[in-house]
Amino acid sequence: MARWQPDAQGRLQQAAMTLFLERGYAAVTVAEIADRAGLTKRTFFNHFPDKREVLFAGAQDFEAGIVEHLTEAPDDLAPIDAAIAALTHSSLELAQYSDYARIRRDLIASSPELQERDLIKMTSLASAIAEALHQRHVPPRAATLTAQAAVAVFTIAYADWVDDSTENFDTLMQRSLAEFREAVGVRRGTDN
Amino acid sequence: MARWQPDAQGRLQQAAMTLFLERGYAAVTVAEIADRAGLTKRTFFNHFPDKREVLFAGAQDFEAGIVEHLTEAPDDLAPIDAAIAALTHSSLELAQYSDYARIRRDLIASSPELQERDLIKMTSLASAIAEALHQRHVPPRAATLTAQAAVAVFTIAYADWVDDSTENFDTLMQRSLAEFREAVGVRRGTDN
Repeated sequence: MARWQPDAQGRLQQAAMTLFLERGYAAVTVAEIADRAGLTKRTFFNHFPDKREVLFAGAQDFEAGIVEHLTEAPDDLAPIDAAIAALTHSSLELAQYSDYARIRRDLIASSPELQERDLIKMTSLASAIAEALHQRHVPPRAATLTAQAAVAVFTIAYADWVDDSTENFDTLMQRSLAEFREAVGVRRGTDN
Repeated sequence: MARWQPDAQGRLQQAAMTLFLERGYAAVTVAEIADRAGLTKRTFFNHFPDKREVLFAGAQDFEAGIVEHLTEAPDDLAPIDAAIAALTHSSLELAQYSDYARIRRDLIASSPELQERDLIKMTSLASAIAEALHQRHVPPRAATLTAQAAVAVFTIAYADWVDDSTENFDTLMQRSLAEFREAVGVRRGTDN
């Protein structure tokens, strides 16, 4: 389990994870999470809009970090390479949370409503990347397709990393991108 | 508006679409839809698990048609081409519903919960395509990536077709695929 900050949000996350592991995600209520953290339901809802969001607390910062990185990427970088670089850069910060990532993966796999939320977060991420690429003067359709490809590549690489967090994330991203290019029917070693 | 079958499901769909157009998706209740169709709420729930599903009634047949087409595709077809061909083939049957498709698109755009459902249907479609490719002995990772790419290509082509349904769906799919290959950083005219 990752280390937790002693703030209210961190205490709520820790309490939630402990309860989810003890009794399964579906069986745990927000009131129980707040109680276990020694806080009120009201405090819970000051930090999270619902129970699902406990497992996606970092998603907004992650997305913001990727957009910032994309905004600052060199102009001559191909859009797909800029998107992959931004995703890779932001993911490196996840390295310290590998135990948490494994528990979180299993919880998401156990719950259709968490899978839905995960899907929505990934779509939001793809939209944010598409918008950031568009700001780099990539035409809208190309920006959308590039962002979707980059998120598909990231999803595979991230799953690989959760499986074996000793692997280098950059290597996993490049392998996933190469596999994606191969799958779409593209010759290797080519550029835009 | 497309022609409707005079069966209960068709009457419910027609009533729902009429009410959604009159008052917006969010404001309409299942009871009102059933009432307008001259049926009971119970009958509604015999046909649809919830209000959202009225707009996704064809998704299961569409998915099944694609899987069937994939199963019967020639063995020597590259996975991405087999997936694109199956999606194209099944989409041709949509041609008669172009007015409905436009109304449906605008309804989905108006409602976050419909957007979420649409996302889930597309993910389900990608999973079904991945599974069908795997049955064709495509390795699991390649099957997943190919299916995601094919669904991304389809999503763009379908939106193009809804915008202008006089366009040939096959042409739109091939254009979208070419744009996708370009976006992922691939030279044209290459094959697996």
